[in-house]
Amino acid sequence: MRLLEEKIKKDGRVINENVLKVDSFLNHQIDPQLMNEIGKEFAQRFAAEEITKIVTIESSGIAPAVMAGLYMKVPVIFARKRKSVTLTDDLLTANVHSFTKNETNELAIAAKYINDSDKVLIIDDFLANGQAALALVEMVQQAKAAIAGIGIVIEKSFQPGAQKLKNKGLRVESLARIASLSNGEVTFNSEKMEELV
Amino acid sequence: MRLLEEKIKKDGRVINENVLKVDSFLNHQIDPQLMNEIGKEFAQRFAAEEITKIVTIESSGIAPAVMAGLYMKVPVIFARKRKSVTLTDDLLTANVHSFTKNETNELAIAAKYINDSDKVLIIDDFLANGQAALALVEMVQQAKAAIAGIGIVIEKSFQPGAQKLKNKGLRVESLARIASLSNGEVTFNSEKMEELV
Repeated sequence: MRLLEEKIKKDGRVINENVLKVDSFLNHQIDPQLMNEIGKEFAQRFAAEEITKIVTIESSGIAPAVMAGLYMKVPVIFARKRKSVTLTDDLLTANVHSFTKNETNELAIAAKYINDSDKVLIIDDFLANGQAALALVEMVQQAKAAIAGIGIVIEKSFQPGAQKLKNKGLRVESLARIASLSNGEVTFNSEKMEELV
Repeated sequence: MRLLEEKIKKDGRVINENVLKVDSFLNHQIDPQLMNEIGKEFAQRFAAEEITKIVTIESSGIAPAVMAGLYMKVPVIFARKRKSVTLTDDLLTANVHSFTKNETNELAIAAKYINDSDKVLIIDDFLANGQAALALVEMVQQAKAAIAGIGIVIEKSFQPGAQKLKNKGLRVESLARIASLSNGEVTFNSEKMEELV
């Protein structure tokens, strides 16, 4: 998605060869116009899938997921990072380890919101080691729902998450795919491919 | 906002005379179409204010705030509930106590995203005791920005939050105002007023 790649080049900050900060438009400050275009793009890519629910994870997945839900006309459910006092029904749960924050959280979704007749699209802001996406997959499978695919805003393709999901037979659609953050610079897979031509 | 009141009557669950659960459309499962209408409504109510930024709090404030930001064409910043490893710049901070969850969190916003030329709209999903909204007010004031008002999706008018904010001279716009949750039933201020006519 060219608009997103341009935004990452312009406003993303490369901290080191593993870390890209996009907190000026995606995960602290949010650019609603960009989220709107992202939602539209996810809806187009999964248009043939007859999706009934979108599942994401708090907090940074919510904005792109809700915009996708608006265009796909389906509800969005966000997994919470720990049990809340007001969330006491039967739960779908999974553990997720964040390498960025070096902490393990329990994710929870109220079981009543996903059932075996659902076809679910999983959306998240980043895909790196795949921990969050795999945990969401596990929870959707607990509900015996079908998984139409995984929609990712920014994939770090040099980390193993995308491959892990594809090895499970899952469709992964990433709107920006980063081949490298070396030398303080973002290089997208799309640019690498152009070089090879 | 009649559409929202109807949704609360239909899908909200009164747990006791203080607690209303709306996790089927607002704070766990999200109804994107409803969020879209909510965003439009906030944009209309504050249309004259020349707002430059929207500030909210993770996670349940994000969906209505991003939709408002889409219609107002301004960025949205969400306060994080504790410091993250990837958020190390100068911070605006405040403590907030949640009576629902019986816990105190530190809220943080990267200081660079709000400055003294901004006119800020604060948006949140619920207003009860006002702890979260007051913490957001404090953080915006740390940045010396102007506050155009507070936009709330659901106000529990029988709790003191709205009055506390008004006592500070702040404009509060709540899309649904609940007068009572007694007898397992939601009664809106709008209905009470009709009774008085």
